[in-house]
Amino acid sequence: MVERGNPISRLCVVGVGLIGGSLARSLKTRGSVLEVVGFGRTEATLVRALELGVVDRYETDFDAAVDNAEIVVLAPPVRTLVEFFPKLRALSEQTIITDVGSVKGGVIESAKQSLGAGFKRFVPGHPIAGSEQVGVASSRADLFADHKVILTPLEETDRSAVARVRWMWEQTGARVLEMGVEEHDRALALTSHLPHILAYALVGHLASQPDPERIFGLAAGGFYDFTRIASSDPVMWRDICVMNRIALDDRLQEFKGELDALIAAVQAGDDEALERSFLRAKNARSQVADHRKRQGGAQ
Amino acid sequence: MVERGNPISRLCVVGVGLIGGSLARSLKTRGSVLEVVGFGRTEATLVRALELGVVDRYETDFDAAVDNAEIVVLAPPVRTLVEFFPKLRALSEQTIITDVGSVKGGVIESAKQSLGAGFKRFVPGHPIAGSEQVGVASSRADLFADHKVILTPLEETDRSAVARVRWMWEQTGARVLEMGVEEHDRALALTSHLPHILAYALVGHLASQPDPERIFGLAAGGFYDFTRIASSDPVMWRDICVMNRIALDDRLQEFKGELDALIAAVQAGDDEALERSFLRAKNARSQVADHRKRQGGAQ
Repeated sequence: MVERGNPISRLCVVGVGLIGGSLARSLKTRGSVLEVVGFGRTEATLVRALELGVVDRYETDFDAAVDNAEIVVLAPPVRTLVEFFPKLRALSEQTIITDVGSVKGGVIESAKQSLGAGFKRFVPGHPIAGSEQVGVASSRADLFADHKVILTPLEETDRSAVARVRWMWEQTGARVLEMGVEEHDRALALTSHLPHILAYALVGHLASQPDPERIFGLAAGGFYDFTRIASSDPVMWRDICVMNRIALDDRLQEFKGELDALIAAVQAGDDEALERSFLRAKNARSQVADHRKRQGGAQ
Repeated sequence: MVERGNPISRLCVVGVGLIGGSLARSLKTRGSVLEVVGFGRTEATLVRALELGVVDRYETDFDAAVDNAEIVVLAPPVRTLVEFFPKLRALSEQTIITDVGSVKGGVIESAKQSLGAGFKRFVPGHPIAGSEQVGVASSRADLFADHKVILTPLEETDRSAVARVRWMWEQTGARVLEMGVEEHDRALALTSHLPHILAYALVGHLASQPDPERIFGLAAGGFYDFTRIASSDPVMWRDICVMNRIALDDRLQEFKGELDALIAAVQAGDDEALERSFLRAKNARSQVADHRKRQGGAQ
């Protein structure tokens, strides 16, 4: 059961795209927010968000947008996001700040440097949901249903602020977890950032062949699934990779070790090593798929 | 329009699994074969195939199974497949032999060594269709519809045998292409074998982490698509990797170059290089997806 609570009096969404827009839609649908104010760099996007009923009003002046907000959600791409912290320093004691960035270490570092005393009201967050589609037109009220949202509060973070942000995400149907910053950045490097790098590298490698069209024409269904994430937004992924480069580089080096072991087994025609590695991966993948099925997700 | 022609008088399917079973079902559904004889190592599978109506009869003696067949289709795993060539040497002049192996170079080499004068009646083939599901119970008459089947005949291959095998596959709704052996093995290493190695390596890498369940629990939808092929049959993929190890090793080395360039860009925080690489891959992936949509496939 989701706990009842007072609706958020005013939510300011900075960056009304897929994630920010879906959060606003979801809270509005449920009556969990009284007013949503949109802010962004491109007025056309804000006009569209207003037309779609995603926001109740928008502002092109940042101070006007965040004025008297109960919660400010920073939802632009992760490196643009950190640029807003200096502007939020003067915000009222009552305002809670949260974000949706896929990388938490770099965001928290920026927040600490810029927010001053207000840092304790910053609740770092990351909804694990998304799509190759981007923009407010793709936003939907059910984007977070049965998805996970990770919060990575620090020791100094105000617990009542954490509770309020948790409540907000629970209204969207998400399951909210708390974990350490490093654990988050390491796990996401493994499950998300590394796979994106591999998919981009593979498709890039095929695109650089003498006759890529002919080669792509021979691809089967498995190839399309495998490379779907290479359709993701290049700028967003550039920013995530750079923001999480320390944790990501470590994972890439480790992965290369795993890959080199398989390459050696291929070169040697080592049946036993190949079968053992493939079987271990298949079993792990099956457990993951079973787990996901139990949670109601797709295979 | 698919050309009309006489039904195949007798088809012997060696290895009645997903591929062999689906071919038999498809031809029977269309009335393009008069009799299907099954052969395999496990009698229970053959009994099941008979119950399902996939074969009209089965034989546990190989010579009896292939006796008087117009076409023998070798459809077991690719390394088991080559073991049948010596037994096919004495086959009547009229019998056409074809296979469904994912690797063509190694299969053709074995056939050449074993078939003697009969080698000219061997038409190497590869239907680009499949599934993580295996076995005759998963076979279906429409498995090859709108899929590609590649034939890699050699100069000495009997053109009337090639035409008959082409006709057979066209009955299943497949589009039949001819190409060179090396081109086939290189292209499939890129679009199929390399992605499988990467998916197995990634899932294996995650499975070797201290707390894999927790990490897998944080994975989003993109991860499931990306790793679906890691659910494929380990023995089948072990065999494919070993059979195609020369072409595959070359592709793996080239891929590592592509990956190293991306890793260097991550380490350096090189925005421009990352964005350029990701954008190139995204554009290539979009073209592939568009092409596939035009052909009626999934995105």
